[in-house]
Amino acid sequence: MILQLKKDVSYEEAFAFMQKMTWMGFRVELVENPGYYSLVLLQGIGSEVDLESFSDFAIVEKQVKYQQPYKLLAREVKPDGTVIHVKGTSIGGSELTIMAGPCAIESREQIMNVAEFLSRTGATILRGGAFKPRSSPYSFQGLGEEGLSYLQEAGERYKLPTISEVMDLSQVELLSKYVDILQVGTRNMQNFSLLKKLGEVGNPVMLKRGFAATYQEFLMAAEYIASHGNPNIILCERGIRSYESHSRNTLDLAAVPILQELTHLPVIVDPSHGTGLRRMVLPMARAGVAAGASGIMVEVHPNPDQSVSDASQTIGYPAYEELMDTLRVIAPVVQKRVA
Amino acid sequence: MILQLKKDVSYEEAFAFMQKMTWMGFRVELVENPGYYSLVLLQGIGSEVDLESFSDFAIVEKQVKYQQPYKLLAREVKPDGTVIHVKGTSIGGSELTIMAGPCAIESREQIMNVAEFLSRTGATILRGGAFKPRSSPYSFQGLGEEGLSYLQEAGERYKLPTISEVMDLSQVELLSKYVDILQVGTRNMQNFSLLKKLGEVGNPVMLKRGFAATYQEFLMAAEYIASHGNPNIILCERGIRSYESHSRNTLDLAAVPILQELTHLPVIVDPSHGTGLRRMVLPMARAGVAAGASGIMVEVHPNPDQSVSDASQTIGYPAYEELMDTLRVIAPVVQKRVA
Amino acid sequence: MILQLKKDVSYEEAFAFMQKMTWMGFRVELVENPGYYSLVLLQGIGSEVDLESFSDFAIVEKQVKYQQPYKLLAREVKPDGTVIHVKGTSIGGSELTIMAGPCAIESREQIMNVAEFLSRTGATILRGGAFKPRSSPYSFQGLGEEGLSYLQEAGERYKLPTISEVMDLSQVELLSKYVDILQVGTRNMQNFSLLKKLGEVGNPVMLKRGFAATYQEFLMAAEYIASHGNPNIILCERGIRSYESHSRNTLDLAAVPILQELTHLPVIVDPSHGTGLRRMVLPMARAGVAAGASGIMVEVHPNPDQSVSDASQTIGYPAYEELMDTLRVIAPVVQKRVA
Amino acid sequence: MILQLKKDVSYEEAFAFMQKMTWMGFRVELVENPGYYSLVLLQGIGSEVDLESFSDFAIVEKQVKYQQPYKLLAREVKPDGTVIHVKGTSIGGSELTIMAGPCAIESREQIMNVAEFLSRTGATILRGGAFKPRSSPYSFQGLGEEGLSYLQEAGERYKLPTISEVMDLSQVELLSKYVDILQVGTRNMQNFSLLKKLGEVGNPVMLKRGFAATYQEFLMAAEYIASHGNPNIILCERGIRSYESHSRNTLDLAAVPILQELTHLPVIVDPSHGTGLRRMVLPMARAGVAAGASGIMVEVHPNPDQSVSDASQTIGYPAYEELMDTLRVIAPVVQKRVA
Repeated sequence: MILQLKKDVSYEEAFAFMQKMTWMGFRVELVENPGYYSLVLLQGIGSEVDLESFSDFAIVEKQVKYQQPYKLLAREVKPDGTVIHVKGTSIGGSELTIMAGPCAIESREQIMNVAEFLSRTGATILRGGAFKPRSSPYSFQGLGEEGLSYLQEAGERYKLPTISEVMDLSQVELLSKYVDILQVGTRNMQNFSLLKKLGEVGNPVMLKRGFAATYQEFLMAAEYIASHGNPNIILCERGIRSYESHSRNTLDLAAVPILQELTHLPVIVDPSHGTGLRRMVLPMARAGVAAGASGIMVEVHPNPDQSVSDASQTIGYPAYEELMDTLRVIAPVVQKRVA
Repeated sequence: MILQLKKDVSYEEAFAFMQKMTWMGFRVELVENPGYYSLVLLQGIGSEVDLESFSDFAIVEKQVKYQQPYKLLAREVKPDGTVIHVKGTSIGGSELTIMAGPCAIESREQIMNVAEFLSRTGATILRGGAFKPRSSPYSFQGLGEEGLSYLQEAGERYKLPTISEVMDLSQVELLSKYVDILQVGTRNMQNFSLLKKLGEVGNPVMLKRGFAATYQEFLMAAEYIASHGNPNIILCERGIRSYESHSRNTLDLAAVPILQELTHLPVIVDPSHGTGLRRMVLPMARAGVAAGASGIMVEVHPNPDQSVSDASQTIGYPAYEELMDTLRVIAPVVQKRVA
Repeated sequence: MILQLKKDVSYEEAFAFMQKMTWMGFRVELVENPGYYSLVLLQGIGSEVDLESFSDFAIVEKQVKYQQPYKLLAREVKPDGTVIHVKGTSIGGSELTIMAGPCAIESREQIMNVAEFLSRTGATILRGGAFKPRSSPYSFQGLGEEGLSYLQEAGERYKLPTISEVMDLSQVELLSKYVDILQVGTRNMQNFSLLKKLGEVGNPVMLKRGFAATYQEFLMAAEYIASHGNPNIILCERGIRSYESHSRNTLDLAAVPILQELTHLPVIVDPSHGTGLRRMVLPMARAGVAAGASGIMVEVHPNPDQSVSDASQTIGYPAYEELMDTLRVIAPVVQKRVA
Repeated sequence: MILQLKKDVSYEEAFAFMQKMTWMGFRVELVENPGYYSLVLLQGIGSEVDLESFSDFAIVEKQVKYQQPYKLLAREVKPDGTVIHVKGTSIGGSELTIMAGPCAIESREQIMNVAEFLSRTGATILRGGAFKPRSSPYSFQGLGEEGLSYLQEAGERYKLPTISEVMDLSQVELLSKYVDILQVGTRNMQNFSLLKKLGEVGNPVMLKRGFAATYQEFLMAAEYIASHGNPNIILCERGIRSYESHSRNTLDLAAVPILQELTHLPVIVDPSHGTGLRRMVLPMARAGVAAGASGIMVEVHPNPDQSVSDASQTIGYPAYEELMDTLRVIAPVVQKRVA
């Protein structure tokens, strides 16, 4: 249940009310909205609680019941949507987010080259993998901490916030020192131990949808992070598994408007993993933005054919520039501006 | 195998060569391309045939081997793509196709009202169902021939070509008298007897993708129509079945650029059936056009909540107009113009 | 709604009551159960009808409301299950049904050879395809009527009832003359025109599950046949499409006990199409019987490697005999006896 | 590549040869088979290596090339199959494995009661969850270490080896002290960090198939454990996600014979999670054994309706006994005996 407080209620009054409810045995979170505060009741609502009685409190404007099992992340909690600010850029607001960079960080030269190019062609966030979850134990597993240091250096020099994937509990501390946004991969979407741990860090987290996860499972996984203390979560649609084997995944773009209706979190589309096919990245990136996504994540490499991982879905610089030119036309349709 | 003939080869020469090959025991189709003719060999190529020897013929420019089991419809046969002309509009060319109208024709008044509205707001083709394939035998099954006559009248009065679904062999003759384009529904995509019959009619056919069909099965089904004599085929992506139950179907927009790479046929997107959710029709229609589709098919009704079938996915007039306004911005990105 | 009549109500009384209800505007079917009759109300139950009032009739024992949209086929209508009798064998009773034979009838010699073998090794029904639905228009499409005459001859000589696939409306009359049981293929499961037509024939119909059909859609398709007059329907689980491509289909054996709970129709398992892999036919046939199926359908050929269609999933005579030996052990667990 | 050594080669000779190859830069594992040793080459085989030359070594009987990307686990490495011995019982051999017990350990009394019952009705391994991966952060998460101590006590008193789920890296050490077999849940199947860690423990590991994992992904995940040093791995088919929502999962029983063909590891079936429906547990357990599984895992509770988790798929004592009675008939068909 959400208790929407009256407009003139101050932060101090809201906080005091929250404390009072905590003493009463409820678990409650305080959420700030433009112009008013809300209290979200997470636990302690048994059948013996007379829910109607909350309306009697003088500072409560109205009560909203949950329609869904996720609570902190339901759209009703923050009707205007969450905007996440990272080092001068924002995700979920009026700016179109462009996360770009190589699948794997291969060398200092490579990531510097990409960052320089991206910094002057409209990207807002630099991506690069240092720990790679590979389905075979015999494949290249990433440069590790060395790669993270190159990513950090590139981000700082070219004024781009960074994002990289964290694979398990033991890497959380390390990653949160080097990168701005921590990414959870599709195979870890329901790694609940990892999700809880990420609830305790200060960095925003981008959670990729499990390749066979329902919308509700996706949001419940995000709720793990939120309920453990971290409200800065970005959702990423990256394709689901279907019976079709021509493409690596089936990009589910309807997830964009549907998730936006269910939750207040920003939604990003990854057309690179979403198709696994280089020639499909541009049309599907455009389609993702046209569907209303807050941004895209795209794999870019100076020489895509030489990419050590995911070469078949990585685009080069000319294709990236062509993409940005068209996004400048499409983004305004969904009221976003391109950097 | 495709034999691409030299540029100066006339229709008469190409035809004579085709006849010669037919006498030799091959099954061959003659295809016209801008500036040259091709011969597509469909049957008769056994292991005993020395394929290389075809290159010796003076009028053959080059041979192209099939990469795929579909032959007449492979992109290589008509690299510039098929454009289908129907009563003043065209599908697959530079014009964005907008097929719109109610799920089911309910009355003469209803279809006249819709046609009048659509004729002045940019639609290019009028849709309306007279025979409805319903999963329950106890549901409304459509107005039948009476509905077809209303559709025909509306199309003629408001200068809109029409499209309606044919459910079985026995309806082909009837439908082809009343409507311009015959539609094959998702459950009939592999009704091979029906497909063969549609190969013999003069009307263009729009084939909807089976809700669990692969791209290859989709194209092989279309090849049934083509190989029985009808080259005017439109493909329609209308959503596939996935494990997600929030939406009725999962619209597979990557099908658009992938099919365009595999075949020369035009590809249309149906965001109404593709999602089954009214609020998702606009974003997914925009996304379909941004992905490069030749057009969209959308269910429009004067009072969507009163629609006798598929009410939950039908949009009203104001939403339709809002959609058209945004498509005017997005379509030029894929070099289409909106009527 | 089902009206279960009292035990002492005669057929004449039940019939008279049904007629009375028909005059009142209802559509009603009369069903015979061991010891009593039931009336199943199919249509005419609007909100204005006071359902409780039916209980007032002296001959009504009790009313049962539908839990599901299928009506004639709900388990509640015939709690003891449907048993279908065909020329001395029965399907759905205490006998294990073994439908066996080649995928396609290739010649008179072939089908005679198979029928002779099967007649002395425990099969109860002879299968053989004369019209083949092939995904490519360029593949072998079957021997047609000639094949049917061979099948009929083989069945008569070796005292085996026969089953063969009907592909469209126009073949129904022909097939029903030559074969005992008409089979509807997976791609035609929702060919509603064909289903209606099959409601009008006297032959039992075996309906194969659509490869992406839900249980409910499967039962609604069968309801089309039943509601058009034919109660003798056999359901066949033959594998569904999943993301796994190692096998041709994913055999859903849980469909057996689940369908048996939902409907009174017999359920058969097809491990040949269900896996598409010859070495998997035996274990999956055993598993199907252990799951409680009324029988199996299996592709058998004198020289499986020379089979003109589906060679990779067809077993030879020695494997068939090995299978039958093990089914004699497993079948009694589910109270079936092997011929 | 696998180098199968000659029959008279001793362990010392095989080991010395392995060391020699290691010095040459290869990564090699030594595998013992009944009557001979094999060397499995995992890494170091570049294009510059002349594979044929290995045949020249006097102690090499023959070379077998990998058909698949998994190496240690390919059937060719141990054609007779892996048998895992745990405290007097064995998995993968001639005995049918019955893993049974409650979904979650709820109290000392509960697990003692179940263990006593199971010890005298044919179970071979006691299951019970202490850490529960729940899709909602607000659901019961298990008794933790307290639960593990109860499980250990019950296993020791009633002479049943135990199995319980490990959810992350940080729990591996704890679990391996209390339980005999460590279970990896479906959502963790591709938690590569966890898999590597489990390669280093002495306990056997049961890996559940990801609910959307292909056979190959499943085997590659198991290969992570094997390639990090732990050869004692049990595979468990527990149902995959399909479009059907009537049951919780779609149990893919064809996985049993297919995996047995691809790998030498034992395969277990879990009909409880595989269907999520109590009434389907018995038929699907029987079907799993008939398909050739090495055993089953089944949720049993003294009062299934009071089970705190997964009540709808848990069976009670009478159903369990009925199941065991029928397995005694079916198991011999696949040459297994029931305890």
